[in-house]
Formats: sequence, C-alpha cells, structure tokens
Amino acid sequence: MNSDQALELLRAVAQGAIDPREALHVLALDPAQSLPFATVDRHRALRQGFPEVIYGAGKTLDQVVAIAERIAADGNGFLATRLESVAQAALQARFPAARINETARTVFLAGDAPLSEVAGPVAVVTAGTSDLPVADEAMETLHALGCASLRLADVGVAGLHRLLSRGEELRRARVVIVVAGMDGALPSVVGGLVAAPVIAVPTSVGYGAAFSGLAPLLTMLNSCAAGVTVVNIDNGFGAAMAAARILRER
Amino acid sequence: MNSDQALELLRAVAQGAIDPREALHVLALDPAQSLPFATVDRHRALRQGFPEVIYGAGKTLDQVVAIAERIAADGNGFLATRLESVAQAALQARFPAARINETARTVFLAGDAPLSEVAGPVAVVTAGTSDLPVADEAMETLHALGCASLRLADVGVAGLHRLLSRGEELRRARVVIVVAGMDGALPSVVGGLVAAPVIAVPTSVGYGAAFSGLAPLLTMLNSCAAGVTVVNIDNGFGAAMAAARILRER
Amino acid sequence: MNSDQALELLRAVAQGAIDPREALHVLALDPAQSLPFATVDRHRALRQGFPEVIYGAGKTLDQVVAIAERIAADGNGFLATRLESVAQAALQARFPAARINETARTVFLAGDAPLSEVAGPVAVVTAGTSDLPVADEAMETLHALGCASLRLADVGVAGLHRLLSRGEELRRARVVIVVAGMDGALPSVVGGLVAAPVIAVPTSVGYGAAFSGLAPLLTMLNSCAAGVTVVNIDNGFGAAMAAARILRER
Amino acid sequence: MNSDQALELLRAVAQGAIDPREALHVLALDPAQSLPFATVDRHRALRQGFPEVIYGAGKTLDQVVAIAERIAADGNGFLATRLESVAQAALQARFPAARINETARTVFLAGDAPLSEVAGPVAVVTAGTSDLPVADEAMETLHALGCASLRLADVGVAGLHRLLSRGEELRRARVVIVVAGMDGALPSVVGGLVAAPVIAVPTSVGYGAAFSGLAPLLTMLNSCAAGVTVVNIDNGFGAAMAAARILRER
Amino acid sequence: MNSDQALELLRAVAQGAIDPREALHVLALDPAQSLPFATVDRHRALRQGFPEVIYGAGKTLDQVVAIAERIAADGNGFLATRLESVAQAALQARFPAARINETARTVFLAGDAPLSEVAGPVAVVTAGTSDLPVADEAMETLHALGCASLRLADVGVAGLHRLLSRGEELRRARVVIVVAGMDGALPSVVGGLVAAPVIAVPTSVGYGAAFSGLAPLLTMLNSCAAGVTVVNIDNGFGAAMAAARILRER
Amino acid sequence: MNSDQALELLRAVAQGAIDPREALHVLALDPAQSLPFATVDRHRALRQGFPEVIYGAGKTLDQVVAIAERIAADGNGFLATRLESVAQAALQARFPAARINETARTVFLAGDAPLSEVAGPVAVVTAGTSDLPVADEAMETLHALGCASLRLADVGVAGLHRLLSRGEELRRARVVIVVAGMDGALPSVVGGLVAAPVIAVPTSVGYGAAFSGLAPLLTMLNSCAAGVTVVNIDNGFGAAMAAARILRER
Amino acid sequence: MNSDQALELLRAVAQGAIDPREALHVLALDPAQSLPFATVDRHRALRQGFPEVIYGAGKTLDQVVAIAERIAADGNGFLATRLESVAQAALQARFPAARINETARTVFLAGDAPLSEVAGPVAVVTAGTSDLPVADEAMETLHALGCASLRLADVGVAGLHRLLSRGEELRRARVVIVVAGMDGALPSVVGGLVAAPVIAVPTSVGYGAAFSGLAPLLTMLNSCAAGVTVVNIDNGFGAAMAAARILRER
Amino acid sequence: MNSDQALELLRAVAQGAIDPREALHVLALDPAQSLPFATVDRHRALRQGFPEVIYGAGKTLDQVVAIAERIAADGNGFLATRLESVAQAALQARFPAARINETARTVFLAGDAPLSEVAGPVAVVTAGTSDLPVADEAMETLHALGCASLRLADVGVAGLHRLLSRGEELRRARVVIVVAGMDGALPSVVGGLVAAPVIAVPTSVGYGAAFSGLAPLLTMLNSCAAGVTVVNIDNGFGAAMAAARILRER
Repeated sequence: MNSDQALELLRAVAQGAIDPREALHVLALDPAQSLPFATVDRHRALRQGFPEVIYGAGKTLDQVVAIAERIAADGNGFLATRLESVAQAALQARFPAARINETARTVFLAGDAPLSEVAGPVAVVTAGTSDLPVADEAMETLHALGCASLRLADVGVAGLHRLLSRGEELRRARVVIVVAGMDGALPSVVGGLVAAPVIAVPTSVGYGAAFSGLAPLLTMLNSCAAGVTVVNIDNGFGAAMAAARILRER
Repeated sequence: MNSDQALELLRAVAQGAIDPREALHVLALDPAQSLPFATVDRHRALRQGFPEVIYGAGKTLDQVVAIAERIAADGNGFLATRLESVAQAALQARFPAARINETARTVFLAGDAPLSEVAGPVAVVTAGTSDLPVADEAMETLHALGCASLRLADVGVAGLHRLLSRGEELRRARVVIVVAGMDGALPSVVGGLVAAPVIAVPTSVGYGAAFSGLAPLLTMLNSCAAGVTVVNIDNGFGAAMAAARILRER
Repeated sequence: MNSDQALELLRAVAQGAIDPREALHVLALDPAQSLPFATVDRHRALRQGFPEVIYGAGKTLDQVVAIAERIAADGNGFLATRLESVAQAALQARFPAARINETARTVFLAGDAPLSEVAGPVAVVTAGTSDLPVADEAMETLHALGCASLRLADVGVAGLHRLLSRGEELRRARVVIVVAGMDGALPSVVGGLVAAPVIAVPTSVGYGAAFSGLAPLLTMLNSCAAGVTVVNIDNGFGAAMAAARILRER
Repeated sequence: MNSDQALELLRAVAQGAIDPREALHVLALDPAQSLPFATVDRHRALRQGFPEVIYGAGKTLDQVVAIAERIAADGNGFLATRLESVAQAALQARFPAARINETARTVFLAGDAPLSEVAGPVAVVTAGTSDLPVADEAMETLHALGCASLRLADVGVAGLHRLLSRGEELRRARVVIVVAGMDGALPSVVGGLVAAPVIAVPTSVGYGAAFSGLAPLLTMLNSCAAGVTVVNIDNGFGAAMAAARILRER
Repeated sequence: MNSDQALELLRAVAQGAIDPREALHVLALDPAQSLPFATVDRHRALRQGFPEVIYGAGKTLDQVVAIAERIAADGNGFLATRLESVAQAALQARFPAARINETARTVFLAGDAPLSEVAGPVAVVTAGTSDLPVADEAMETLHALGCASLRLADVGVAGLHRLLSRGEELRRARVVIVVAGMDGALPSVVGGLVAAPVIAVPTSVGYGAAFSGLAPLLTMLNSCAAGVTVVNIDNGFGAAMAAARILRER
Repeated sequence: MNSDQALELLRAVAQGAIDPREALHVLALDPAQSLPFATVDRHRALRQGFPEVIYGAGKTLDQVVAIAERIAADGNGFLATRLESVAQAALQARFPAARINETARTVFLAGDAPLSEVAGPVAVVTAGTSDLPVADEAMETLHALGCASLRLADVGVAGLHRLLSRGEELRRARVVIVVAGMDGALPSVVGGLVAAPVIAVPTSVGYGAAFSGLAPLLTMLNSCAAGVTVVNIDNGFGAAMAAARILRER
Repeated sequence: MNSDQALELLRAVAQGAIDPREALHVLALDPAQSLPFATVDRHRALRQGFPEVIYGAGKTLDQVVAIAERIAADGNGFLATRLESVAQAALQARFPAARINETARTVFLAGDAPLSEVAGPVAVVTAGTSDLPVADEAMETLHALGCASLRLADVGVAGLHRLLSRGEELRRARVVIVVAGMDGALPSVVGGLVAAPVIAVPTSVGYGAAFSGLAPLLTMLNSCAAGVTVVNIDNGFGAAMAAARILRER
Repeated sequence: MNSDQALELLRAVAQGAIDPREALHVLALDPAQSLPFATVDRHRALRQGFPEVIYGAGKTLDQVVAIAERIAADGNGFLATRLESVAQAALQARFPAARINETARTVFLAGDAPLSEVAGPVAVVTAGTSDLPVADEAMETLHALGCASLRLADVGVAGLHRLLSRGEELRRARVVIVVAGMDGALPSVVGGLVAAPVIAVPTSVGYGAAFSGLAPLLTMLNSCAAGVTVVNIDNGFGAAMAAARILRER
C-alpha cells in the first residue's frame, strides 16, 4: 500500500464508505503494506517479471517440487539453485520446459509474462576452470533476471596475456563479476583494468591453506584496486543479484 | 598511448617519418601505453575531474605534504585519507583552501578544473554514532568525487522505528552504503527494504567477540538479503569508490 | 544425605547408637550427600516430573535402548536427542507410546507421573526453513518439560514485514528463543521488539563464510539489542533448558 | 500508537474531526508509532523508571556530558558505562549527586521518579579478583535497574571449597551471573549446583592462549551444564540487562 | 655405539688393529652411535621391556600386519593404535594371543620378555561417556607399558558430587589423566583437588562451538589450577606416554 | 577441618559436649572443611614449606604490597610474579630481604620455616635468548619451591651442536622444561633425546605468523616425540608448578 | 611475438607491405605477444622439453582424458596430478606408455622430444611414512621436469640419529625439499645442517591440533633456521616447481 | 673438527701420541665437532666472508652493543636488524664506519676480510611504498651478503602497466623477492612473468581484514603461479637469506 492508496483508504473512511474498524483491520493485519515503503517486500522486484528463487540446499526433494508447483500454478517462473542431481531431474520431469544447468546445479522455468530485459552485459570472469560452477550459477541467475552475460573463463593472473587479450570484452561489460579461488588475485587486476563496478566472488577451490575459500575471501577484501566489493564464498547467485541491483531500471 | 596515437605512430613508420627500430623502442619501453586498454591506468578516471588520492597511513608528514604539493602544482586537486591530526594541520597550513574533516581524518583540495557531477545521491547509513568516522570517510570521498550524499545516522536494528521512519530518504538513494560494527545486522535489514545497490562496511566498533570487525564482516558476507556486497573493515573510502563505479557515467 | 538425615546421624552419635569413627566414615565416603546443597544433583529437577535426557550422539543403538529401558523401568519418562533414524525407530519399536519427531531427531516418552505444567508460552522464532530442525529440538524439549511453545517460522530480517505481522504472538511469549543461521541478525531485531528474555541459537545453516555457524554465533554475541543471551551452535536443547530455568517455579 | 489509539484516529476521520491528509501524516511520518507493537521502542522499558544508558566508549568527553545533560534536563536519570577516569570526573563535577564506581568505570544518576524495585537478588559470582571490573559493571547496572545484587568473588573452581561454602547465598539468588576469564570453567560448576537461570560472562582476563577472552567464551558456550547462556566478552552490562529481562514484571 | 664400544674402537686403533681411516669411517657413517647420548634412540626405552608402537592411522592393512610381523619375529611385543576394525581383525587373525580393545581401537601383543612393572596407579578420569575411546587408548597404552590404571568415568563438573565421591581413588593415583571434551572444565577442578601431576586430554567430543576439540584445548591450557599440562586433542596415547615418563624408574 | 578435627567434633557430640544441631551447623556452614580431601585447598601444599604465590598482573601496586604484608606478617614467604618494575621496587623497599629477578619480573621472600628440598634438578632449556624471561620465571618459581634447576640457554634446533654438546646436563635432569618461541621445534628434539618428563612452554617470541605464540603452541601440541606435555604461552610459572607436582614427595 | 617479430612487422609497415591499420590490429588483438616479455607465457618453460601439467582435482574423468589426448596429439608429454584411482586407470588404458605413481596419484607421459636434464639432485626428505604421498608428488614432478631426486624417508626429529646418519646424501643435494606434518619441525633442523636452498612442505598429516596442516605450516614459516621457504599444505608439486626454478639453466 | 682433523686425531691415537681415553674425551665432550657435517654450524657460511647477524628485537641496547663489539674485536663484520633508532645511533657512535639504514632499521659493519661477491642481481619488488621497510631489510641483508640487488618499488597489480614497464629489469634478476601487503597478489603475477625463483614476503601493511599480514600470507601460499615460495610476514631478512642460499657458490 503506497501513500496514494493509504490516502484513498482514509478518504473512504472520511466518506463513510469504509468502516473505521475495517480500515484498522486493513492497516493492522498486514503491516507490511501499511509501511511507507512500497519496496518493503524483497520478493516484489522478482515477481514483477523476475522469477521467484528456490534455495535448494537443505530442502527435501518433495519440498522443492512442492514449492515449484505452487509458484508455477500462478503462471510465475522460478529459479531453483543448489540442487542435487536428483532434484534437478525431478524438476525437469515435472516441468519439461524447464532449463537445467548441471554445472550450476540450477533449474529455471520462465514465467508466462515476458521478462523485461535488464541492460547489460555482465562479464563473468573466472580464474580457473574449477571456478566454473560458481560462474555458471551467476550466469544462470542473470539469465533468469533477463540480463545478458558473457563469460571469460580461465584467465587467471599467472598468465596475464590470457586476460589482457580479452580487453575488448571486459571494456564492454557494464558490471564485471570476477570468480576466483586459491590466491583470489584476479579481482585486483581486473579492478585496475576497468572502471565498471567489480563484484568479487571467492570460491572454495584450492586446498591446504586456501582453507575452503578463506584465502581468496581475505585477498578480495584487501584488494588494492579501489572500489572492488565482495560477496560470500561460492555465492554466484548473490553476485548476480548484486549486479541486478546495479543494472535494474528504477 | 591510445589507439589513435598508436595508429599515428604506425602511419609515421609507413611514411618513413619514424624508423621501425625507433618505433619498436617507443612501444617496448613503455608497454603500458601500448596496451589496448585506454583504462589500464587506474588513476585515469580520477584525473579526469576527480582528484588524486593520497593514502596517509604509514607515510611521514613530509611525504604527505610533498606528494600533495606535487599534485597541486599541476592544478589538480587531491583527497588525503587516514591522516593524523598533525598531518591534517600541516596540509591546511600549506593549502589554506583545503577542506578538513577531523572525524573522517581527511583533507580535500579541489582542483582548478570544475568537478563533473556524479548522479546521486548516495545514502550513508550508520548503525551507531561510533561508526561515524567510517561514514564520514565515505562521505568525504563521495564529495571529492563530485557525488552528493546524505547521512542516516544511528538507525541500528535494535530500534527498528529509527530506520523505518527514514524510508523516504532511503528510497531516494541510488546507492546505499551501510556502515555497522558489533552485530553488523543493519545491511540485511536495509537490503530487504530497498532495491538499490547496497554496499556494506563492517567497522571495528565493538569489543570482545567483535574481534576488531571480524563479527560484522562475517555477518555482512552472510547477509540473508540477496545482492548485498561487502568491503574491508572500516573501509569507508572503498565503499565510496565502489559507489562511484556504479554511478559514474560511461 | 540431606540435612534431616545428617541430623539423624549426629543424634545417633549423641545417643551412642553410632560410633564417632563410623559416623566419620559415613560422612567421608559419600561426600556428595553430605553437601548442604539439596540441588547439587543436576538431575534432581528433571526427575521431579521432568523426564531424564539421553544425549544420543556418540552412543550406540544398544546403549541408547538400554539406557531408555533402565529409565522407563522405574516409570520415569525420558527425552532422547540427536538420534539417527535407526535409533528413533528402535526406540519406537521398544516403546510404542513414545513420540518421535523426525525433524528434531528426538524421541520422548512420558513418565507415569503427570507432568507439572510450566508457565509459558515460549516463542520459538526461526529466520529460515532450514533452521527448523534446531527449532524443533527446542520445542520437543519444551514439550518434554511441560512447557507450551509456539513457532514463528521463516521470519528473517530480509523481509521485515514477516516478523512485524507476528507482533501479537511475540508479545504473548514469556521467553523468546530465536534460531538463525547465515547472518544471525534476527535476535537483534527481536531483542529490540520485545521486553521478554531472548535466547539466541546460532545454526550451522549457511555456507562459505558462515563457517559452520561461527558467523551467526559472533553476530548474536555482539547483538546491539541489550540483554540477548546466546547458546552453542545448533543447541536447541540448551535453549529450551535455559527457558525452563527462567520459567520454572521455585 | 496502540490499536485503540489508531481506531480513535480512524473514527475521528470518519467523523470529519480529522482531515484524511492529516491522518496520513500522523501515520506516515512516524511509522514506529503506527506499528502494532507498543514495545517497539527499546528505550521504553528503561524510561519507565529505569535510567537511560550512555555507552561511553568511543565518545568524546564533551559528547558524554552533553548527552547526560540532555537526559537529566527532563528529570530522568542515566547510567554511563565504559568511561575513562576523566569522563567519570567530568560527570561528577557536573552532577554532584551522581554515583561513581571506578572499578566498573560507571557513573549513575538517579532520576526524579522513584525507581520501581525489581525482584531479586541477582548473584554475581567471579572466578578471580581480576574479574571484578566486569562484575562491578554488572552490579552497577543492576543497581541502576533497581535490582538488588550480591557478590561472591574469587570462588574459582581450582579451589572448590570457596564456592561450596557459599551455597546458601547461591541458592537464594533468582538469577546467577557468573564472570570468569582464563579457563571459564566456573559457569559449568555453578550451572550444576543451582536451578536458577545462569548467565555466563567471559572476561579478557588471562594471557597467552586465553586469546583475549576467546578461551572462556568457547568454554562457556560448550558448558556441560544444560541451560547456561552466554553474553559477549567483558559484557557485564549485557548480563545485567539479560537478568533484568528475566526478573522484570510484565 | 656406547662409550665402552667407542673406547674399544679407539684402543683397537691404538693397537694398530684397526686403521685410522677405517675407524673414521665407522664413526662417520653412523653418527647416531657416536653421540654421547645412550638414550638418543627414542625407541630404546620401549624396547627394554616395553613394546614397540605402530601408529595405524594412514597405514594400509598390509603395512600394519607386515610391521607387526617384523617386530614379533624377534620375540618383541607391540602396541598398535588408531586401527580400523578390519585392521584389528587382521592382527588378531595373525596373532591370536593379541589383546583387542575395540573402543580404544588398539591391539596389543605382549613380548616374550616379561614386562617390568611401572609404579602406579594412573587414574584416568573422563567427563562423559563419549570420552571413553580416548580414555581407553590411554589405558591400553598404560597396560602395554606395564603400568596399572583405574578409570573414573562420567564424572563431569556439572554434577560435582560424582567426582567428589571418588576422592579416595583420586588421592591414590600417582598421576591423573583427565579426559574431557565440550567445556573441558574437569582438569581445572581435578587439579585443585589433587597434588599429583595432572595431564589433561581434550577430546573432539561436542558440536558447534567446540570446534572439534579447540574449545576444551584452550580451556585446559588456561586452567586456573596451577601446574596442569596438556597434550593434543584425542591423544590418549600421548597422555599415557607422558605418565610413563613421570613414573618410569631411572 | 581435617579428619582428626572432624573426629574430635564427632566425639564431642558423642560425649554430649556439643549439641547435634550445632555440630550440623559447623559441618554445613563450611563444607570445604568437611570434605574428605585433605588436599582440597590448592594453597595447602604451598603453605607447607612452599611460599604463597601473588599473581601481580592486573593488581595495583597497593594491592600487591598489602597482600605481601599480610602473608609475611605470619612469617610465611611469598613469590610474586608478573610484576612491573615499580612493583618490584616497592616490594624490595618494603622487604629488603626479598630476592628480585628483573628478567623474570618476580620477587621472592623466603618464609621463616626452612624450605624442604625437592629432588631435582630441573633442566630449563631455551631455544633463544629472548625466551629467557619465561625461563627465568620458571627458575625463580622452582627456587621458591625449593627445587634446584640448571639452565641450558640458546640451544635452538637450527644449530643442533649447541644442544648435543649439553647432553651430560640434559641426562642429569629429572624433569626438562623446554622454552621456545618462533617454530617451537626444540621440545620435539629434546623429547627424542631424553626419557625424563618434558614440559614444553611456548613463548610469544617471534613476529608475523608466530601470532603471539600460537605457532609454537601448535607445534608443541603436535610434537612427534611421544609424551611431551604443554602449558600456556609464556607460562614459565605453570611449567615449574607442573615440575613440582612431578618431583614432590608424597 | 618477440622483439624480432615486432621489428619485422614494423619494417613491413615501413616498406608498405603491411597497412598501418592492420599492424595495429595485430598488435592490439593479441597484446600478450606484443609485450616485451618473451616469458609471459607460464607454460613456455614447460613446453620447451618439460611436459604440460594437468591438475586433476575437480575435473571429470572425461575432461582429464580429453585434455591429455589433446596434448599428446602434438607429441608433447604431460604430467597429471591429484588423480583418483579411476582417472589413473583411464589414462593408463589410453596411454599404455604412461607411468603411474599410485602413492603420488600422478600419471606421467614422456613427450617425443628428449627431456633436457636439469642439474640436481634434489633431496626429498620426509618426517614420517605418512608424508610419502606428498613427497612422491614432488619426486614425480621432478622426474617429469628431468631432474634427479633422492628420498630420505622417515627421518623426523624425534629420533635425530636417523637424520644425522644421512648427512652424506643431504650434503650432495643442490636443493632440499623437506616434507613434514604434525609438528613440522624437520625443516628447521635440516636448514641448520645444510647450506643449500631448503623448501618446506607442510602436510595435513596429524590430527587434533594439527588442524589439517595449519600447525606445521606455521612452524615452517617461523623456522629459526634462516632462509627456509615454504609452500602450501600438501603441495609437493609446488615444491618441485620451486626447485626447478632454482636449478633450471637460464 | 672436520674430517681431516678427526683423521689426524685418530692417527695420533694410532701412533700412541694420544691416549685412547683422551681421544674419546675430545670426541665426546664436543659432539658438534665430531659430526660428519662440516656444515652443521649455521654460522659457518656467514663467517666465511659473510658477516654475523645480530637480531636486535628483544635485546637491550647494552646487549646489542656488547655483541657487536665482541664480533668486531676479531675483525669480523656484522649485520644488525630490527633495531630501534636509539640502538642504531649507539652502534654508529661506537662504529663510525658502520652503515645505517633507517627505513630497514639495520646497521652493517663490513669485516676486515674482503667480501666474496655473490652472483646476482636479486630484484626486490614491492607492491606499495609502505612495503619499503621490509624491502630495505632484504636489500641491506643482500648487501651484507655481498649480493647486488635492484629495487622495483610501488608496482602493485592494480596498475599493471607499472610492473609491465619494468620487464627488462625483472628478466635480468636471478632471483626475485616480491614484497606485498594487503591483497598480496603481486607474487602471483610476477611468478607468471619470470622463470627465475620467486620468494614472496607478505607484509603487515593494510588494515581490517588484512589481519596483520594474514591475508597476503594466505594469498601467497595459494599462488596460482607454480613454484612461488613464501617466508614469514615482514621477514625481509629471511627472504634475502633464502636468495643467498640459492645464489651462493657451493
């Protein structure tokens, strides 16, 4: 309920069209609507063309399918992430039109309403091939959000020429998501090469003193390239959502 | 050396105006210029209207003043951060036109060239009053970058009404920087209230198990509001630079 | 040996019925009884109407059943926690009257003596659906302790309206247990909304920089809402016991 | 604004006594009041007889005094914590009636309104003499909250008889706050001796592998006495607030 | 090569029976023997009546059996630790006289030479039943070293009377090994009760903030009972070896 | 109250000289005395010839002197540790007969009663010269306990010959305390050279990744020489007390 | 593109053989070649006689085989590391000439071109038998690099004579790789014995407070033997590459 | 005692010039000399032309000067590191010929014997200007070891052109020492650019999540450029010693 609607409600009360008790009920029973924030509901943006998101980790197969069915019943699309192979298969069996990305461990079903395009593209850059699952989660999320993306894979800093030769593509990107494990050095180099927003995603790739992603996480937080921001370890979904916050029309 | 200049050089070679060996020398001795990235130089964007940045920590008083003089000699402005009181005073004595922010520990001197405005505003939200130095560093940096900002101070989540009553201002912001120590919970709440990009800055405020900012850092990295990004502990400067990456025209 | 028994012993000494050396022996051999604490025995409160607790983790199937049988043989009830599915099944096979909670991984058998009610209710609030096993462990423990509870599930801070719309229930609770993983921000918000005791339970839900519950644990210890207390990661049982310490008549 | 007041407002609108725009203004400008929580404001309980709290750390001398004057101007009392000696002196110079506790580093000024008593007492137990500053912060806070407390100092577990000989006092307490550094073992023992709520406060006392309170913090979180809760390192204030949540009439 | 043998060698040189170059070769090729330490060889003490130790972790089944056979071929006994069930079975099949302890995961074969008794007893005290595997590893090692031990199980500090009632046994012990997980508080209490050497063994028992034994490890290192020493997490073998160093005749 | 006194009390009851109720009161009010542990009091052993210990850290100058005076008033001696220079001077001014060790930061005053000798010697071995303060704290404590010690300083493993050339002394020691910072490798080598008990003391000597003693602490806990035990970082006092537990006649 | 090629290109421009725009394109599209570093490509050294390296972890069976086939198709050899048994078998089935090392989990195929020898040998020293997989990975890598190596296994510092008796071999080595878990003390001792470069490799061998290799890692970084360098936990491959950097002719 | 001397001793025994018992005494009392390692003494290499090293940290002014005088008395030179300003001044006052480096905090006095040159040069590369003290410590150590060095300062990865333009110098270096704080990403880039040995030195430069050098330390240990080795945080001396091990003739 925005200010105009609230005013309308109050005027209806003033005109006797609505009983005060009923008006109170409207305001009190669903306080979220009565807040002066039209955007309080975090799902709102997603529902407006964007699909809903089902976080698959820690949910049973039945739960995932049930939630997906409930969403799809209204003609909405959904994006499900962190799915085991069996859950991916179950969703595809139920929704043959769904798009599966095995590497990303995601399933996406487009909604009935056409998706409004988000300006892009977002470059998703990875240091090594083992960072691909995280990069793919980001790209699938971007796809579900209606945002074009392009991938620059395996361009880690130990062989600089690989990155430098992709300058044209990097410069075209309106947001750059950099995915790296091990030393996590790539965002510092990319942040020095482009002026666009850089979102760094540490991955749990590496062993020993990588400590399941702690090493690249710290590297990225301490990036000597000013203005690089960081999301949680392996959180490709979060990086894509941050890119969408940046690119989304308002 | 941009593409045009490189082409000019090659044409001079083609016309015999420059010897191939000499041309090789020009290209080889300063490879940075020969890279196909016009934006390789991270200082470039700053120089184009933005001031240069002097990181004061670990520099002697003489070093800071000398660097500032060298920059100002060319008519450029500068922003100096992490300055002890004595360094702030020394810079002001040398540059009476400079603007000092004691809380932020910054000194800013505008350059001769008028600063191109960056669209805003950026909301800088703090959980408590002790987060103000970090917030002020962000705001001074934004000011130096030509970007308007507004401050919502002391609106921590333990008293939700303080934040909820500032909804109008929050919604106006094109980027929201959220500064919080202790439990670092504020970005999660703000991230749920606004659709704009949210940059979280953990601070070293707190004691005991806050472990000098580790606690709010982890909180923010694990934010349940999707798409929140994080910078280093107490890094108000970095958050502002990230906001500028987002807002800057390209 | 309680005070009455000790007095009786001393009187027997005074009457010459018992030799002083023998009395010394009685007192010395079993010091626990000679302590002036009627409450030294931590199991005592539980035995007085409350069931005994069998901590299932690290015990073999046989051990769990044997302990349960020994307890039940005296007509006492028991609560068994942290049970694998097979142990739950074994207990139910042996005690058909027992109540199983698969999510909580608990089995509860009521004792012969009627359970004295503990005033409540205790609200058990969770940030997400994956926090439910911990919440259910708390609720089953409360049930076994004779204390009513109510659940407010999936009301995390990224969508504040979910929590705010449950104000009526929150206010009714005499103790609030808040269960959250990831950013662990929920107890700070709840602690600001209610005046009742708030017990925060971090969960190991989350990945990457959640570090198996370390992140929400630190968040909760640093809660900016004054007077929030914390128990171990995933320790729903401990939170319920703490609530019982608060609510129990004395 | 509670439900009754909201209804009254809406009825006034219905009766034309209040203009709809004005009513919207009342509801929108201060959303905190429009929330269905009468207790949203965390300061409320304190203001009703309890003093306001000024957290002194990170505030300048002038700030502390100014805040104190603003509070006292309304006839309210205040409790200021974490004050340097000079700030304590400044407050006492300004408020001769204030009560200073140098060990606790607190200053308390009673308000004009008589303080409603909170049932107690709360036992504040310390393992060693160096834990006293934290214990005293807890006791001064309890005093400011109108709650009686009693101190059992230097009764660490390495000399059990010291604790066991104080059984009478321990049993009388309605809440027990246990303050300990180093091994932090005391709450486990106390938790086994009493049935009352036990709030454990780790302190930064100790050296080497105590890691500034990390060791006793972990000990307490893992207490083998069921139902012990924990607050932040050195947080005597928080423990007292938790005790007040428990004891406070509702 | 002991001193006598070295002297003999030098005398042979003096008598011309051995060439100086050859003598140099003897001394140089095997410097261990030429060291003035008769005790350089850490296995020496074990071989003199004590069995050799086979650390089973990370060894294949074949390797364990082969090593055991080599030792036994000389009539020596052995103690094998950290053995999987299959390795235990394989050793027993090969050495029917061997003694298996499934809880401790050890296999012990007595040597032909009678074991010289080590004065004792050593008390092995555990906080909970899940600490038994570690305690049993200590007791089996003590048995293999010819040292009597007695067990006080499940006497954790949350129920003090359980420990206090075993005072007689505790006082009889010449060394006390205290095994505890979770809060690790037991050694502090035991260290205050007895004057004998106390060796604390943290276990990985517990969950959440026990962090696989880190919590009790830190507790024990910070024990407020002076003179308590600590060994590695779950290292019952090491504790027994430390006890043997203390008790062994010299 | 020891056994004799308890027996005397009971006999007085038997003879009618004391009323049973009064006797109960005596036993109940001071349970420490009624415990069948003659050794419950941790200070007891020290008082029997050993001096009392004053832990200086965190105590004011006045407190230290006052405690020392109270002890000395009874003709007892004391050992004060962790004293600032000014506290050392104050104690010496007050007790001219006291022995000061500036490196160890200790002051020792012998009691009137002659100290019973404890069999030794204890070798105190240090890896480097900067470990001397910790070693000296251990040696002063041993001196105060009446136990002879000998020092092997600066014999770190990077120059093995330094240690190997001291074999004679090492072999004579009945207990070996090994003090080392940085890599903390010395106890592993010493533990392989001697059969006596080895107590390892990590020190905070070193920088960077020594993390204030964490590195040598972990090294020592993982010593590949079986039976090495460890005390807290910089805890020379604790190591000496552990040695005394081992050597003390019982 | 090396300097000669660049010069050739520029001369072609000078002679009109190549259009300036085309030349710009050549330089710009592949900047790596235009860099004045002939060695920018990290694979270059390997390709010149050395095999390419396939890091097997996180790659599917098909990916590993496909990559190997692509390399071998050109007559090049390869070294594959971190391979599961099934991947080792698959590679051997496909390349019967390949050399498998099950302990090291590597597969090596020699290329058609004869491998240029690298001066050696490199001594690979291990503290215990469980460090062998890491040592073998180092030795297989050295073998693939054409560098001779020799192994000194199970010479940990707890039995110094084992190491000292191998002095001759140690002195012959031009580089010494020291592999150790648990206390990680061996590199400090070796570093004191030899003047050659010492590369320390911590392993994840050990349990409890070894924290998966953290303990030996810290030990090695703090080695009191000057000039010891360290690589990642379990990184035998990296140590061998570092040795090759040292030994390789330039 | 080297092999020749030992042979001479044995021949003297053979010739009756020395009694076997006396020979045993010579061999046994000073085992270091009797070891078959000519290089056991870690100082040996230094003494042969290289100066001795005095580690200044934790030593008093008097100790430093006294040690320096003892060394210089024999005509040897010395290098003193980690010196406070006052210690630097005291050494220069005593040794006017000494060379002081205030940034490096070192004092170097050349010995009487001419220093044998070590082949070089060693490139010392720093990411930022605040890394200079560590870099200078490395360069002063190299100077004292007779090894030429060259410095590439402030060439961090956020502005790649700075590093790339120094390719000529980098390629000339026989060993590259890379000094970096904050993200510690520079060694990964340098390791990809050069084939020479790369020694990475993390510095404590940075704040917040740099955790006093932990972040760059982890980055470097996880470097994706194969064969990079790492020394302790801020350990410029150790890196130089490692370079000397590599370059030193043998």
